[in-house]
Amino acid sequence: MDSLVPPSLNELIEQLSELPGVGRKTAMRYAFWLMEQNEDYLSTLGDRIAHIKEAVTMCQRCFRSFERQMCDICTDNTRENIICVVESTEDLVQIERTGDYNGRYHVLGGAIDPLKGVNPEDLTLSELTDHVRTIGTAEVILATNPTMQGDTTATYIRQMLEREDGVQVTTLGRGLATGANLEYLDGETVKNALKNRR
Amino acid sequence: MDSLVPPSLNELIEQLSELPGVGRKTAMRYAFWLMEQNEDYLSTLGDRIAHIKEAVTMCQRCFRSFERQMCDICTDNTRENIICVVESTEDLVQIERTGDYNGRYHVLGGAIDPLKGVNPEDLTLSELTDHVRTIGTAEVILATNPTMQGDTTATYIRQMLEREDGVQVTTLGRGLATGANLEYLDGETVKNALKNRR
Repeated sequence: MDSLVPPSLNELIEQLSELPGVGRKTAMRYAFWLMEQNEDYLSTLGDRIAHIKEAVTMCQRCFRSFERQMCDICTDNTRENIICVVESTEDLVQIERTGDYNGRYHVLGGAIDPLKGVNPEDLTLSELTDHVRTIGTAEVILATNPTMQGDTTATYIRQMLEREDGVQVTTLGRGLATGANLEYLDGETVKNALKNRR
Repeated sequence: MDSLVPPSLNELIEQLSELPGVGRKTAMRYAFWLMEQNEDYLSTLGDRIAHIKEAVTMCQRCFRSFERQMCDICTDNTRENIICVVESTEDLVQIERTGDYNGRYHVLGGAIDPLKGVNPEDLTLSELTDHVRTIGTAEVILATNPTMQGDTTATYIRQMLEREDGVQVTTLGRGLATGANLEYLDGETVKNALKNRR
């Protein structure tokens, strides 16, 4: 079927089919839909995609995707002095949305996964120790995903933080189905998990 | 939650959520995934999206998306002299994939839909008459989608072509579920509909 679609459209379809959960059929649908949009939409979208990494930076303290060096949560003095450790900014958004948490965050940038070549040094772990010391937190909530990689990461962090005096390490209360992905859970499940942390 | 995501990322999410079948959640997933890709992928993808309309043109005879003025089907002398009328290039691809059709095509660029402001003059209808005359076809197969808009368009074309001498107008054999969308059907259904055309 490749010969049925113009090469430039084919190349676009190939690239779009790399998006998470998108197969060739959906990618084709997106590509043909894009073809029908006006130049304005296309050039704006193209430009945003091309420059998204330049436009978005990370908070230098919690490593959340943000537009400034220090994010609004890290600079908010009314926030409690506890740190919720998450794998990604998406997970942070999910927890923040519950409205039940008024502490700080630390975004790891993934989970330990040796099979995929993600080792502890690829995550913001030494930065987590710095973060804990800088704000002198008494509690660190481990909110990694309830997957093998997330659990491994949580165990690693727990051992790492044992060396820090006066820091209590808790994990999100289970009730999270093992294998689930934090960002897909409903707010209520996340709220409960937060409340039942141990 | 808008304030939780950097503005530039938010703008990208807004735009991605306009893609067909994509909600804010999926758009966010795409945006965060894009953030993790390398500069090369992003600049290539951005560039392709921005310039897709320039890169892809339409065959001046059948109005299929193609990279040249006249497409490989229209210039293929071994093709039968019948014209299959479809709404979009995607539908053409779907029929061509069955391998059961060896005629020509004519892409309308949509279906008559007054509520959405799509009138007969917005489609390639006068060009269809030209096409019919230029190649002197004896049969036109109407393969518009089995929806109200598609049926309206088929009726309109049938009346339009009554004025052309010696042109038989057929429609795809039903078996297509009403309300279905051609591009999502399996090859077998399309094959049968093609065989049972009346």
